[in-house]
Amino acid sequence: MKSKTDGRVYFDWAATAVPEYAEIQFPFGNPSSMHAEGRAALEALEAARSRCAAVLGIPRECLYFTSGGTESNCIPLYSCIARQCGGRIIASAGEHSSVTGNLLVLERLGKAIGRIPIDETGRTTPDLLKNTLEKYGNVRFAAIMAVNNEIGTVNDMAALGNVLREKVPPVHLHCDMVQAAGKISLDIAGWGIDSASLSAHKLGGPRGIGLLYLRKPQEVVYSGGGQERNIRPGTENVAGALALADCLENHALPEKLHEQYTAAHRRWQHFLTALKSIDRCRLIPAGREPDDTGFSPYIVQAAFRDIPGEVMARALDDLGFAISTGSACTSSHQRPVLAAMGLEDNISLEGVRISQGWSTTDEEIDLLLDAVREVLRFL
Amino acid sequence: MKSKTDGRVYFDWAATAVPEYAEIQFPFGNPSSMHAEGRAALEALEAARSRCAAVLGIPRECLYFTSGGTESNCIPLYSCIARQCGGRIIASAGEHSSVTGNLLVLERLGKAIGRIPIDETGRTTPDLLKNTLEKYGNVRFAAIMAVNNEIGTVNDMAALGNVLREKVPPVHLHCDMVQAAGKISLDIAGWGIDSASLSAHKLGGPRGIGLLYLRKPQEVVYSGGGQERNIRPGTENVAGALALADCLENHALPEKLHEQYTAAHRRWQHFLTALKSIDRCRLIPAGREPDDTGFSPYIVQAAFRDIPGEVMARALDDLGFAISTGSACTSSHQRPVLAAMGLEDNISLEGVRISQGWSTTDEEIDLLLDAVREVLRFL
Repeated sequence: MKSKTDGRVYFDWAATAVPEYAEIQFPFGNPSSMHAEGRAALEALEAARSRCAAVLGIPRECLYFTSGGTESNCIPLYSCIARQCGGRIIASAGEHSSVTGNLLVLERLGKAIGRIPIDETGRTTPDLLKNTLEKYGNVRFAAIMAVNNEIGTVNDMAALGNVLREKVPPVHLHCDMVQAAGKISLDIAGWGIDSASLSAHKLGGPRGIGLLYLRKPQEVVYSGGGQERNIRPGTENVAGALALADCLENHALPEKLHEQYTAAHRRWQHFLTALKSIDRCRLIPAGREPDDTGFSPYIVQAAFRDIPGEVMARALDDLGFAISTGSACTSSHQRPVLAAMGLEDNISLEGVRISQGWSTTDEEIDLLLDAVREVLRFL
Repeated sequence: MKSKTDGRVYFDWAATAVPEYAEIQFPFGNPSSMHAEGRAALEALEAARSRCAAVLGIPRECLYFTSGGTESNCIPLYSCIARQCGGRIIASAGEHSSVTGNLLVLERLGKAIGRIPIDETGRTTPDLLKNTLEKYGNVRFAAIMAVNNEIGTVNDMAALGNVLREKVPPVHLHCDMVQAAGKISLDIAGWGIDSASLSAHKLGGPRGIGLLYLRKPQEVVYSGGGQERNIRPGTENVAGALALADCLENHALPEKLHEQYTAAHRRWQHFLTALKSIDRCRLIPAGREPDDTGFSPYIVQAAFRDIPGEVMARALDDLGFAISTGSACTSSHQRPVLAAMGLEDNISLEGVRISQGWSTTDEEIDLLLDAVREVLRFL
């Protein structure tokens, strides 16, 4: 009955995408070496950087290859320490643990930190941001993600960027784009973003490679051989960089993105409409409409009455479907983002995250709906 | 005349090894996910860890996958900040820039740092270490590499470990093993090492994956989704971990290592004997004998009278041979390790590094010697 080989249907693309990269031919040399092997490797690396920059519409000098989304979040955050800049670091309550976890470390190291509340949709609104800036007075760095990884809420980065640009001295805007790249339209330059993070494996690429956008070079903590213009030390992952460029061209080029977004949105409208018709199912937030473009059409969070999220995920797993509760990167027993949205504990614990990808089919969605109904009959 | 395809002969294995990994089949799931795809990925990751631990003869719980050698050096170094431990951090004057560069950052951040001198062979001797400990009095962390990446000098880690173990309070011993793994016999546990770094791409594996050995878990700076038991955040690179396990089994298992070491040593004896017979060639250190096992048989540093190292490297590159001056990770105009060995500036600037690998042949060595002699006739 399952459409996929090995009988599994995958709805956890937000945790990691189904890989679609082929084995890449690449020059094996160390890009820092002066000989022909090194020069060929450097040329390939820089070609990959140019291709990524072209897709994202930003200067290639602003892009640095890293080991992934987490490192791309860490570098600008710890730059606050390396630069010994004063002022407070704030982050939205919706951030991924690779931001929130580091805020706690930074606080232990003596930095003042703070939290930007999110509304009941999981969104950081310009007003919430303004209030937070006013409350603290001395903010110098704000981390706000483009798309929430558990709920799919899309933040209005342009409006948030405007709020921060008006401040004197300016507030650095860091944007985690891990769930946004290849999923929604991005305008990194236009939104006034100072730094941003991307991950290849969420885009169908390999692990161990990501991108950091930095509008201006900064002092950073981890140092080494001067690679990536002193922003990210370590021998450059040329194969990974080429694979990431492929991914971005496959999914984030405006025309490709639009086509894939439209298809995903249509599938998700069908899926969310069906979910809402299930008596015991409640979308999170409850007011999410199937056609609301304020949410990513690749992610939905839903709660099934009287079924803990973990139990639902396990039951579906037994039936051959991969879904998750929250982020793969946090314990299923804590749902800080749902709590910050004001959800009661019992509903939070019932939440599951279902996330699709570019190759998800209508048939797979119908199979998942059948499976959900089957679980509900027995639990 | 050249033996290799595309007419090139590669003698820069210390910068990066010729890749020998095949495309690896691996479960694509996120190891932190609870579903079948995630569990399969976790199982593969842990199997890779166990295989690495078995080769290195250490408990698997002490091994953490990182993005490479640089990160594996950074994590323990910055742990000194995360743990807010008092005392001084010292490092040998022979260390790679991924250690020395970070010491400068740590100093800017307020940590006291210091340098352990090296002798004229590039070695950190127990006496030099003792003197340094006495000089500073408050040392808590010492970074000493197992094999110098520019000279090939092997440090007596067992003796150095003994010196540090005698101190009260104990001094953390961090060992950069990037040029040692798969090249010389290692006894991580027996040498009293507290942390160590390894890199896959120096072992014929892919970029973007390395290993960190930590005798005991520590507080670290970069935080995130709790992966690698909170030591190294970021979605785990399962394919990389499996490739690294393959590399270690291919080159660092005692019997394989012994066989490859013996062959490399024999080739290098021939090569160094021939180099010493060239009138304008001086090995660095000058006293290095072709059969001296106090140096790695994979690396040699040599100076050719009246030819800047960069010129020699470029001339050989034109003839189809890849060699380097110093580390790929430092500018060729500065040779801090050679300076620390007490070499005069003019000789330092003449230094080139020639490094072989497991698949280097006698014929390639003879071709290189011919090419060197050819260059010397014209320059």
